Amino acid sequence: MSELTPELEQLLDGNRIGVIATRAADGQPRQSVVYYARHGDRLLVSTLADRLKTKDVLREGRASICVHGHEQPYPSAVFSGPAEIRTTGIGPDTALVMQRVSGADQPPEPQTDEALAGVGRVLLDIRIERISAVSHV
Amino acid sequence: MSELTPELEQLLDGNRIGVIATRAADGQPRQSVVYYARHGDRLLVSTLADRLKTKDVLREGRASICVHGHEQPYPSAVFSGPAEIRTTGIGPDTALVMQRVSGADQPPEPQTDEALAGVGRVLLDIRIERISAVSHV
Repeated sequence: MSELTPELEQLLDGNRIGVIATRAADGQPRQSVVYYARHGDRLLVSTLADRLKTKDVLREGRASICVHGHEQPYPSAVFSGPAEIRTTGIGPDTALVMQRVSGADQPPEPQTDEALAGVGRVLLDIRIERISAVSHV
Repeated sequence: MSELTPELEQLLDGNRIGVIATRAADGQPRQSVVYYARHGDRLLVSTLADRLKTKDVLREGRASICVHGHEQPYPSAVFSGPAEIRTTGIGPDTALVMQRVSGADQPPEPQTDEALAGVGRVLLDIRIERISAVSHV
């Protein structure tokens, strides 16, 4: 399954954290919790250049995010695809993620690439190519 | 970090679903949402013999589960270690998982191995060897 149906869009837009998985250098899955924003068929995560997940994506070029609701029957799905680490033109996308963190009505004023680089921030960008483990959506 | 502190036990015992990750046959991480029960330093999942995660554990012998709370700041951690698929003597452990699904005060009467095998149920058993990505716990 790879079509982003309205129900799957609602799952993504109605939640704001998910569990990202990347392949570590030793070949094992690596997981952690991240805030994300959806922009069309892309999932955006603001992270730090020195994080292991950043290095995994630079090396492997792939990632997945599992999102679930928090009440039974726990609607959930896994979104995976090619991923990249972006460092230029990332102000607006980073602001979309920050809006999800704060829960504000509008995204904050975008920061410049230089300001974001100054605090080590990069943008992890996943294109949804495959949707799997869809349950109760 | 590998010690199961009271706070980490509370994270595990206060939630009942998590995102399991296994390594698929193609080497990529595979994720899905599962109910789990904790028994000491083991995480128990009741699944089906024909599920891909079952085959992954049989082949790889490892799994991880990421658990997070559902309110900001979203306490979370990833619990990983050696994993196995059990098919004998699994009635009581399966009942512990079913109790978490139902939310009942007590686990249901354990089923026999034969009854569980008849509906394809196996017990995926992870021993917590490593705790990583601990956040806000």
